[in-house]
Amino acid sequence: MGPSAEPPRSYTIIGVGGVGGYYGARLAAAGHPVRWVARSDAGHLRRHGLRVRSPKGDLHLADLDVYGPGEAPPPADVVVVATKALDNASIAPTVAAAVGPATVVVVLQNGLGVEAPLAEALPGTVVLGAMSFICAVKAGPGEVHHLDYEAVTVGRWAPDGRAAGVSDEVVAVVADLAGAGVPAEALEDLEAGRWRKLVWNVPFNGLSVVLDAPTDRLVGDPSARELVVTLMDEVTAAAAACGHPVPEDTAARMLANTEAMTSYAPSMKVDHDARRPLELDAIYAAPLAAAAEAGAAMPVTAALHAQLAFLDHRRRGVDGERTP
Amino acid sequence: MGPSAEPPRSYTIIGVGGVGGYYGARLAAAGHPVRWVARSDAGHLRRHGLRVRSPKGDLHLADLDVYGPGEAPPPADVVVVATKALDNASIAPTVAAAVGPATVVVVLQNGLGVEAPLAEALPGTVVLGAMSFICAVKAGPGEVHHLDYEAVTVGRWAPDGRAAGVSDEVVAVVADLAGAGVPAEALEDLEAGRWRKLVWNVPFNGLSVVLDAPTDRLVGDPSARELVVTLMDEVTAAAAACGHPVPEDTAARMLANTEAMTSYAPSMKVDHDARRPLELDAIYAAPLAAAAEAGAAMPVTAALHAQLAFLDHRRRGVDGERTP
Repeated sequence: MGPSAEPPRSYTIIGVGGVGGYYGARLAAAGHPVRWVARSDAGHLRRHGLRVRSPKGDLHLADLDVYGPGEAPPPADVVVVATKALDNASIAPTVAAAVGPATVVVVLQNGLGVEAPLAEALPGTVVLGAMSFICAVKAGPGEVHHLDYEAVTVGRWAPDGRAAGVSDEVVAVVADLAGAGVPAEALEDLEAGRWRKLVWNVPFNGLSVVLDAPTDRLVGDPSARELVVTLMDEVTAAAAACGHPVPEDTAARMLANTEAMTSYAPSMKVDHDARRPLELDAIYAAPLAAAAEAGAAMPVTAALHAQLAFLDHRRRGVDGERTP
Repeated sequence: MGPSAEPPRSYTIIGVGGVGGYYGARLAAAGHPVRWVARSDAGHLRRHGLRVRSPKGDLHLADLDVYGPGEAPPPADVVVVATKALDNASIAPTVAAAVGPATVVVVLQNGLGVEAPLAEALPGTVVLGAMSFICAVKAGPGEVHHLDYEAVTVGRWAPDGRAAGVSDEVVAVVADLAGAGVPAEALEDLEAGRWRKLVWNVPFNGLSVVLDAPTDRLVGDPSARELVVTLMDEVTAAAAACGHPVPEDTAARMLANTEAMTSYAPSMKVDHDARRPLELDAIYAAPLAAAAEAGAAMPVTAALHAQLAFLDHRRRGVDGERTP
């Protein structure tokens, strides 16, 4: 990846949902060539482009370079995987088809363990992990609503989750995001960054689904808030046991931020309401497995995971009845 | 309480729901004088009597001796408190008004700690605790639907939950129930009996509400079933820590019984769906407090309690909006 005097780095965005749509649009608006890999929305994106409604200013990108199922874009400098963290092994062929010898892959997803299936399918490719701290939803095909926040953290992935330090590729992606007006931070230890995000995701994603409540109802109720804290404490302790401690005040700060935030339905709640699959492996099963291996108990997280799995099984059972 | 050659013991049933209605009707059908203390249903019961639909045979009792709000029945030999276990301190005056010098009080309710508020309000009165293992619901005023099971356990209450042995009063009430065709068992240790019932109530009452699922869906799903077992194990361990161990195979047998049982909505689910208050103190808060005092951790039970409390708070909040 060259110095900044060279032409702007090209990006391929795989997955044009709230997250991929938002950051891809910002990068495109900042002058980066952006290609879009979409599934069901490919036709709509070609015809109508992409609209982003945002408190920072709306965007409408027309004449998008869109690749639908079975179509591979030419290799980009950076490929951003912004699909749901559901089954990265199954999307590895799509990612591989978009990757050239010098391409850097950025896995911009929630949860733990999301990079490994892609890194294994792409030997020799530099893989970064990234997380977005953003309230953004796909309101429809080619329609992104950005509500609040937008910061991104980026770190170099390494096998076994060991800290890889801030590599040149991380610096370059962070610089591109910053140049597009997105606050971006380089992570010395990607895995610690992932655990830090789990401190928020584990309580709020799951409880919003099980209790059918947005974030403000959860932090505004004394019982639910205490349960949020219990879950945050379990994640914090598990992160430390796994060798990736998060800053001591992480839980308290996230709670305060969430209280200051507008009423928000976390992505898992949006997925559940839309009867889509939930990111249970990345946000619950993988952290629980890592914690168990490190000897850390997460009984309340495990219980919440079981409740979510029950709801997900029931949804799939009903879907199964619908499509015999 | 006299020998069985004397006239049949008289009963006053306080609370004519599924439980009070069913057992009161069986006792009346067996020849016991029964008086009924009701609130909103008093007029209906006077006019139309009480109907019980049951696989054991239907009953219709007419010309009931009904006492409404502010009306006290003459003292009976036995007063059965069969209201919801919501706030026994607040119903103590109603119970006291129905009690004479020789009356025995039977607290036929779920949960832990339900006898103490009544015993404190009735110094010198013998207080028994009882639990019903029954699927029965009040389908409407004066309408009881008995679906399955009906066994009752009865034990002598003593301060601090210590085992009081099988007293004469326990023997008499067990004999009356058996004479009415109800399988009844005397408990040496009432508190152990209460913990044993909690092994079922803690998982199934709470999860049926939070996951909006009847018992068969819960035991039929691998994730929910594992969570049921986790909760059963917590209750079993807490019972032992509190000095009231339940038989070792309690959880396994209850799970097997529940699998063999028809699809069933536990009472808390019925209450929640009807937007009525939940028995959270008796079934969750009191066992959690007892376990905490005994040094037993119940993290998953505490989490489930917090979820239920959140739902109950929300219900009351909405009710509050409705009645400004």
